[in-house]
Amino acid sequence: MTQGDARAPLCSFRRDGFGFDLLHEETRTRARRGRFLTPHGAVETPAFMPVGTKGTVKGVLPRDLRAIGSTMILANTYHLHLRPGEELVARLGGLHAFMAWDGPILTDSGGYQVFSLGHLTKVDEGGVTTKSVVDGAPLRLDPERAVRIQALLGADVQMAFDHCPAEPGNRSMVEDATARTARWLERCVAEHQRLGGTGRGQALFGIVQGGAFPDLRARAVADVARHDLVGCAVGGVSVGEEREQMRIAVESAAPLLPRDRPRYLMGVGTPLDFFDAVERGIDMFDCVSPTRNARTHKAWTSRGELNLKNARFKDDPSPVDPECDCPCCLQYSRAVLRHLVVAEEMLAPILLTLHNLRYFHRLMERMRAAIEVDGLTELRREVLGARGEA
Amino acid sequence: MTQGDARAPLCSFRRDGFGFDLLHEETRTRARRGRFLTPHGAVETPAFMPVGTKGTVKGVLPRDLRAIGSTMILANTYHLHLRPGEELVARLGGLHAFMAWDGPILTDSGGYQVFSLGHLTKVDEGGVTTKSVVDGAPLRLDPERAVRIQALLGADVQMAFDHCPAEPGNRSMVEDATARTARWLERCVAEHQRLGGTGRGQALFGIVQGGAFPDLRARAVADVARHDLVGCAVGGVSVGEEREQMRIAVESAAPLLPRDRPRYLMGVGTPLDFFDAVERGIDMFDCVSPTRNARTHKAWTSRGELNLKNARFKDDPSPVDPECDCPCCLQYSRAVLRHLVVAEEMLAPILLTLHNLRYFHRLMERMRAAIEVDGLTELRREVLGARGEA
Repeated sequence: MTQGDARAPLCSFRRDGFGFDLLHEETRTRARRGRFLTPHGAVETPAFMPVGTKGTVKGVLPRDLRAIGSTMILANTYHLHLRPGEELVARLGGLHAFMAWDGPILTDSGGYQVFSLGHLTKVDEGGVTTKSVVDGAPLRLDPERAVRIQALLGADVQMAFDHCPAEPGNRSMVEDATARTARWLERCVAEHQRLGGTGRGQALFGIVQGGAFPDLRARAVADVARHDLVGCAVGGVSVGEEREQMRIAVESAAPLLPRDRPRYLMGVGTPLDFFDAVERGIDMFDCVSPTRNARTHKAWTSRGELNLKNARFKDDPSPVDPECDCPCCLQYSRAVLRHLVVAEEMLAPILLTLHNLRYFHRLMERMRAAIEVDGLTELRREVLGARGEA
Repeated sequence: MTQGDARAPLCSFRRDGFGFDLLHEETRTRARRGRFLTPHGAVETPAFMPVGTKGTVKGVLPRDLRAIGSTMILANTYHLHLRPGEELVARLGGLHAFMAWDGPILTDSGGYQVFSLGHLTKVDEGGVTTKSVVDGAPLRLDPERAVRIQALLGADVQMAFDHCPAEPGNRSMVEDATARTARWLERCVAEHQRLGGTGRGQALFGIVQGGAFPDLRARAVADVARHDLVGCAVGGVSVGEEREQMRIAVESAAPLLPRDRPRYLMGVGTPLDFFDAVERGIDMFDCVSPTRNARTHKAWTSRGELNLKNARFKDDPSPVDPECDCPCCLQYSRAVLRHLVVAEEMLAPILLTLHNLRYFHRLMERMRAAIEVDGLTELRREVLGARGEA
């Protein structure tokens, strides 16, 4: 970071309080060290964004998120639309006030949830019809509505409403979904502009679909890039695809994306995924894995994953991860964690959430430092080697 | 506190790292401003002790407890004995390490739980036979065993194993239980001495039973007082007794207790109870009400209680308690709390636990300041008046 601060950016972009500085590009990989600027502050990239589905990262106060290194967080449009509703969030001052988070926030479009959670979801050219997971009521989402809901939520970044293909390996389905995503993006951009565009303090990111088909990804990048948006996302790689397909998707999309805009890989993932994606030019990530795993007693560690419910930790006085500096690892032993899990104490998921998020943030910190000295390959070997994934 | 610090104590007691300074006595009431000294720090009294049943105050990290004003906390011998067991706690360094709490800790004796939670609990002169609430296994507790378990847990203060009368209004039952409590106290004191007494860094408090019968309370005080213990507790008033019976119990016991030792009223209670008891000479309290109520969405406030699940808070932008300075009230509205409750987010009980505990601690802070200027009666009128309880 210090090096990045001292040098002039390789390229920069600014618009209405948003911006991106490309601080360094690795010589041996396509990894980028950057800084994404938003009206609520800067995000050093590569960055991991914790997911606060219903307006809170489960079990964590905002000040504690900040303390473990979170800078930008995510909230889910689908869930907040159903409960408490975007109008109420807007009346209460928008998501920043609602979540008590004064840093950058990104909302997804709700598209991923209607496709992954929805029962009897029907897609037509206009939009998507599904049923609420809360009460089964009919729910219609379309590009314009997704933009309007997100405008009321008021995050710094909103995502375009896209069509995630149901079978990412089926070329004709992926082709249809990718083409529809491009048509829907035009409608999202038009609605976003109609509502004031970035001048209202909210950027719109387009989403690149295209499955594991390099030519479809390339076409999708072109469809997104011509809108000259503040940022771009690579989607459709978190729905149970194989790791190799993710590599293909990122490899065929990222290098074609605008160099002076942040690139966000949606819904990924694991330390191995992060290295694979950052080496291919990705800047931002989100995933429920650190928070969701914490609630099933799983800890990411520098030596691999642990399940703290396991009886072998009953007497283990060592911290969850001896290399970690989070509030869990500094104060509690695996034995105490195991007791808290068995006793079904709330403190167990709270501590493991803090730990897992810190593990992800610390990994990103180390990746940023490594990129600045062209050392990401060595860091990859060190981190994945210790985890037995090299 | 400043006044108390500047003046010489009215009386003092010291023994092996424990002590008590009586800093001020009110002229119009029997209220006392004191300071209880333990090997892990001082407790300004009157004080409220949060309950951390199974080794954690549910949902709260120790640093956050400290920040909202907790000084001494409670843990439950019965629950920790069943899970994870006192031997494991001892191997892991004792309760302070186990709970990651370096301040004073008090453990109850397990007696209250075997009487209130136990099915088919049988009492004989030797002790109590019951079944574990965890797995139904037979469980035997007696005075010696309660002392040994608590010695392994290693809190600063352990409580004597007492007999809570099943029917506090039944004189012959209360008389029997009170006499047995006295006999059991002798055995507790002998076992505590055998293990090293206060020299091992752990004080033993005796418990005064006697129901709402002033003569039995007076006899119980005499039975406890002759052991010259570091502190004394008034028990048997939290098992569904009427408020008037609590007043009688405290009034007939507290004035007879040693003036230079802390007096702890077990399992009480509410702001009204605190005023009633402090005015009668009580120094310390514990109760699950602030933490347990938080988990059923209830908040104590300066204007009375609220249930945050109530639909009338759906749109309410005001804090839970406008007079409160806790992390919940400083950052969140009732509307957001109501959303978090309805969405079943862990953050709701976390925030309400912090709030309720802060409400209790702040009330104690105000009582301490009022006692120093002989103003407890005015504070009572102000606090209970605003709550509609004057």
